[in-house]
Amino acid sequence: MKGFAQTPVSDDGYRLWLKYDLINDAAKRQAYTRSTQFVSLTGNSPMLKSAANELSTGLQGLLGKSVPVIQNAGNRTGGIVLNRLTGPDADSQLLAKEGYRITSKNNTITITGKTDAGVLYGAFALLRQMQTLQPVEAISLTSNPKVQFRMLNHWDNVDGSVERGYAGSSLWKWYELPERVDPRYRDYARANASLGINGTVVNNVNASARFMTAEYLHKVAALADVFRPYGIRVYLSVYFAAPKTLGGLKTSDPLDPQVRRWWADKVKEIYQIIPDFGGLLVKANSEGEPGPQDYGRTHADGANMLAEAMKPYDGVVIWRAFVYKADPKADRFKAAHEEFTPLDGQFDKKVIVQVKNGPIDFQPREPFSPLFGNMPKTSLGMEFQITQEYLGFATHLVYEAPLFKECLDADTYVNGKGSTVAKIVDGSLHRYSMSAIAGVANAGSIRNWTGHPIAQANWYAFGRLAWDHTLSSEAIAREWVTMTLTHNPPATKRIVNLMLKSRDIYVDYNTPLGLSRPWSGVHFAPEPWQNRSSRPDWTAVYYHRADSAGLGFDRTATGSNALAQYRPEVRRTWENPQTCPLPYLLWFHHVPWNQQLTTGRTLWNELCTRFYTGADSVRWMQQEWAQVKPAVDPAIHADVSARLATQQREAVWWRDAWVLYLQSYAKQPIPAPYKKPDRTLEEVKRLTDVYLLR
Amino acid sequence: MKGFAQTPVSDDGYRLWLKYDLINDAAKRQAYTRSTQFVSLTGNSPMLKSAANELSTGLQGLLGKSVPVIQNAGNRTGGIVLNRLTGPDADSQLLAKEGYRITSKNNTITITGKTDAGVLYGAFALLRQMQTLQPVEAISLTSNPKVQFRMLNHWDNVDGSVERGYAGSSLWKWYELPERVDPRYRDYARANASLGINGTVVNNVNASARFMTAEYLHKVAALADVFRPYGIRVYLSVYFAAPKTLGGLKTSDPLDPQVRRWWADKVKEIYQIIPDFGGLLVKANSEGEPGPQDYGRTHADGANMLAEAMKPYDGVVIWRAFVYKADPKADRFKAAHEEFTPLDGQFDKKVIVQVKNGPIDFQPREPFSPLFGNMPKTSLGMEFQITQEYLGFATHLVYEAPLFKECLDADTYVNGKGSTVAKIVDGSLHRYSMSAIAGVANAGSIRNWTGHPIAQANWYAFGRLAWDHTLSSEAIAREWVTMTLTHNPPATKRIVNLMLKSRDIYVDYNTPLGLSRPWSGVHFAPEPWQNRSSRPDWTAVYYHRADSAGLGFDRTATGSNALAQYRPEVRRTWENPQTCPLPYLLWFHHVPWNQQLTTGRTLWNELCTRFYTGADSVRWMQQEWAQVKPAVDPAIHADVSARLATQQREAVWWRDAWVLYLQSYAKQPIPAPYKKPDRTLEEVKRLTDVYLLR
Repeated sequence: MKGFAQTPVSDDGYRLWLKYDLINDAAKRQAYTRSTQFVSLTGNSPMLKSAANELSTGLQGLLGKSVPVIQNAGNRTGGIVLNRLTGPDADSQLLAKEGYRITSKNNTITITGKTDAGVLYGAFALLRQMQTLQPVEAISLTSNPKVQFRMLNHWDNVDGSVERGYAGSSLWKWYELPERVDPRYRDYARANASLGINGTVVNNVNASARFMTAEYLHKVAALADVFRPYGIRVYLSVYFAAPKTLGGLKTSDPLDPQVRRWWADKVKEIYQIIPDFGGLLVKANSEGEPGPQDYGRTHADGANMLAEAMKPYDGVVIWRAFVYKADPKADRFKAAHEEFTPLDGQFDKKVIVQVKNGPIDFQPREPFSPLFGNMPKTSLGMEFQITQEYLGFATHLVYEAPLFKECLDADTYVNGKGSTVAKIVDGSLHRYSMSAIAGVANAGSIRNWTGHPIAQANWYAFGRLAWDHTLSSEAIAREWVTMTLTHNPPATKRIVNLMLKSRDIYVDYNTPLGLSRPWSGVHFAPEPWQNRSSRPDWTAVYYHRADSAGLGFDRTATGSNALAQYRPEVRRTWENPQTCPLPYLLWFHHVPWNQQLTTGRTLWNELCTRFYTGADSVRWMQQEWAQVKPAVDPAIHADVSARLATQQREAVWWRDAWVLYLQSYAKQPIPAPYKKPDRTLEEVKRLTDVYLLR
Repeated sequence: MKGFAQTPVSDDGYRLWLKYDLINDAAKRQAYTRSTQFVSLTGNSPMLKSAANELSTGLQGLLGKSVPVIQNAGNRTGGIVLNRLTGPDADSQLLAKEGYRITSKNNTITITGKTDAGVLYGAFALLRQMQTLQPVEAISLTSNPKVQFRMLNHWDNVDGSVERGYAGSSLWKWYELPERVDPRYRDYARANASLGINGTVVNNVNASARFMTAEYLHKVAALADVFRPYGIRVYLSVYFAAPKTLGGLKTSDPLDPQVRRWWADKVKEIYQIIPDFGGLLVKANSEGEPGPQDYGRTHADGANMLAEAMKPYDGVVIWRAFVYKADPKADRFKAAHEEFTPLDGQFDKKVIVQVKNGPIDFQPREPFSPLFGNMPKTSLGMEFQITQEYLGFATHLVYEAPLFKECLDADTYVNGKGSTVAKIVDGSLHRYSMSAIAGVANAGSIRNWTGHPIAQANWYAFGRLAWDHTLSSEAIAREWVTMTLTHNPPATKRIVNLMLKSRDIYVDYNTPLGLSRPWSGVHFAPEPWQNRSSRPDWTAVYYHRADSAGLGFDRTATGSNALAQYRPEVRRTWENPQTCPLPYLLWFHHVPWNQQLTTGRTLWNELCTRFYTGADSVRWMQQEWAQVKPAVDPAIHADVSARLATQQREAVWWRDAWVLYLQSYAKQPIPAPYKKPDRTLEEVKRLTDVYLLR
């Protein structure tokens, strides 16, 4: 695409990690050229064509030469052969349905898969090898996805807005569809396919009933047509009360025969319009959404009704476990476990229950949800949030792989040591019939897709971990930086290091030691003093429980006893404030201000240390980023620099808001060497008030 | 900017009409080259630098050669000299403040202006000459703006949404500002400066009080810094109740001394932060917004209070006349005239009253507002809507210049024949001290700015007409097509013809013969049957008044007598259904179904003819557009083709909705040769119902 004539050609971020810029190292290019004289495929499969075209295009960019796509290479050597297995062979046993194997012999690279999708993923993997300058002469690489359903969840509305979106409007132009198909949809599919993402829920879980109408299903079908050649199936969020709203029925009771018939007919209609439809995602009886409990039925009743409608088809029902009642005496932490574990074993085989990583709501740091491990008879899927609702919108640099990994690697001890959340989610621990991992998308119509250029790495990291949760945060960051930002090794090292530290830095100035949910209305500004709302669990004080004695939510046996939802091995460590990891301390304990912590500091002094160190560390991030300027595209460098300046200003705001507010309870000075904020609590509050104005 | 490597380089529309692609005609290039060896300026003025840089960049693109910018050409010839007058000379008398003069002598082109802005506009005018392949050897061109304040109004909200926006999210990234300044802001300024637009209101008239806080004023200041070198001043919409909301006062009564002090202080603060701030735009006591009437005061009281605060500064107060009360017996048509004409002469000299072109609300066709001509002592500004709220969002091709012109050229007869609306708006008729014209913007963060590629022409046409309302719709369309789409003369002719007919075609299938406001909730779908709402004037039946006798709103003396608000010359023509122009017929008359019209057809038959001809004409538009395929960029051609397909489908929907609904009153068959719709009214309603779902 051309920019304004006077704009120097600069990187606008649109290409994500699929840049395919010419490799500077001529020797490297030559080495790759030996086995990339052609790309061969057999047959007319749209997915194999996608793979071949991507290789041809990618190699053209990387190597600066034209690479023809041919049919049936036969004995010809020196190229890339796409080898979709049609029967058992030596590779069959190594490969799962969507896995791939890449081998090289006589300068010919063979990409083998049991399915077209496997070959497609292998093609992107081979390109990644070259984008990261790895040798391919003797390549022998086998990879299988650990999780079956690897999905994005878009919280996109019919009016083009995106709930918790910070990258412009929705990618989907509903008023233009189905006739106009934005070329961008295909690039979206390519980006996802390059990571192995194989499903996307295109509409918000707070769902519009419009998506169950023929008018909208045909629009969705136009998207499905674009996504299909990239192995991506379309899913829809459903409005549980649609039988009443759309069908004109008197009830949406899941046990009512007319309601069941309505859904069966509706699902049939969907499959007539979208033959490879993926399935339904449901937010029910949660935050005001309708659901089966409106009729005295259970989540299982609701989910199973939809599963029955889905029975004739190759689709699933994904039921969210994000529920909590407005009970002032209850502990919201415990709600999902209390509602769902009694239903274990009652869900139909076609149902996946999708669980947020933590028990509350995508906080910067949460302990893993106690549902993981406690529903052995129900396929539990993981729901991560990629969009930075609680992580600084599009102005804070937070690399999320460490957050995802922290949860996936957490040990539930449900079958003894090593019973990690990852092993539950990938289905291996409980032998689930289905496995799923979903990320709430951060992509929007902004030119660079994600607003913050580094937020592209979160989309990337989610996808890579959905495929293989054993990858390290560091390895993923290095891949992404190399493909996206720079080939300069010292710069790469510096950026990777900055990314790896970014989440802890954010937590330090935002919610250290296990604090949570101090947000004002739109989840942008600090408001730890917020104590009024329509619901007690929609205030900030509900979560941190600051008083003259101390700080934190007692979830031990003397408090809400939420810890009883975890296995003894976990509980014993966390219920003792001396052994509870500091990052989770205030999640589980009300700690006196002068309590000495394992760091040797009192709680108050430790809090201040975290807030100040966190805010100061943003300056360090700015300095580090300044160092890599010569190695990074100027437009992207300037963009990130400007956002870091905003982050720095806002980090100090967060620090000041917390320390000034907590000081009113702790009644202690800011410890040396830190200087007290140069503004008052009232001044900080006034700044937050700006963001509460309509 | 680079696209994905595999995307062929295609035109993504980002460059608008400032494409500066190489001129194919070598002889033409050579002719231009003779007087474009350099661009010379004197001094360091940022606006002159903008002019010089634009010329240098534009010529580089058009001529394929580097054109240096130099200081003080002296006697050197063969280049372009930017001549900002520092004292009176021969040209002075020809030039208004922002006017320009372009002359050529000895192969040197001189661009003269009394102000830096004049020179800047001249630079863009010279580029336009070359973009449209006009000769420049003997150029002698003088142009002065007819209107002083030429503005865009953005209805953009703090959350990034755009009220009535169909081109993605807001251009302004409030969470990123002031640190991150999107490079796009500058391109926005360039596009506007190229048209002579010299002001922009960046926030919605349904205003957030955030914009009156220091936090946001600094964000706005960062925009002003980008716009200033392009001669564009920033304005803000204000929330009238801000003294209470922000200032903590007990009242926002405009006669209260504390309130007046608060605004004076606030305006002072604004000018400290933005020294060239343009002024305030106010929507008060309109559609639920607060205003002076909340305290028993008048619009003049409110406006004059703000004018007093603005007194020390070079800024204005723009007060909107878009008001109407929820009175079931009143005629909304008359409301603004009734409320505002009694205040004529009471407004401060710094106040402009901004009037929508028609008496209702940006309908596809309205008679001119009867306020024009009836407030000789008050500077009245024009408010047009560029964004297609009632013109098919981003999927219908509607070229709006004929709509703008129809209003500007309308004769009010207030000072006898020739008293056009344009002469009132440009201030010449009533010798206004200020003149203003505003367009509600259609630009958003979508890559091509406006969603529909042809909608760029509406932004362009608005700007050109704001500068010179005597330009013809055809001339403007030809300019725009030549600069933006093609240099091929037959294709240009065809596209211009299609554009010129597009608005009448839209009116025919949407609201022919003076129908209005048949819209459902979001103003997308047809809902002429809508008869329930919180207010009578928010129903459709209020406007068309269909019954068994006939159709239309009687606004003659036997009805609401709104026609009495017009001069006798106008009234006499319009009050007689025999002489009333057909396009306005149902605006003023309740016409029997079998009444014979001047076309020789009965009302019913004429309505059907219009609806069917309009919908059929979209097919003609599709055919015409298909013809120009070889002459237009493939990506843009495909984009417009797809949108035309949607428009065709929706035009039939509009037709069917109206004829089936009206048929239930007219009780007559669809006349030959038209075939009755192949669906029922209930089916059509169900389709509309889809768009009423949340």
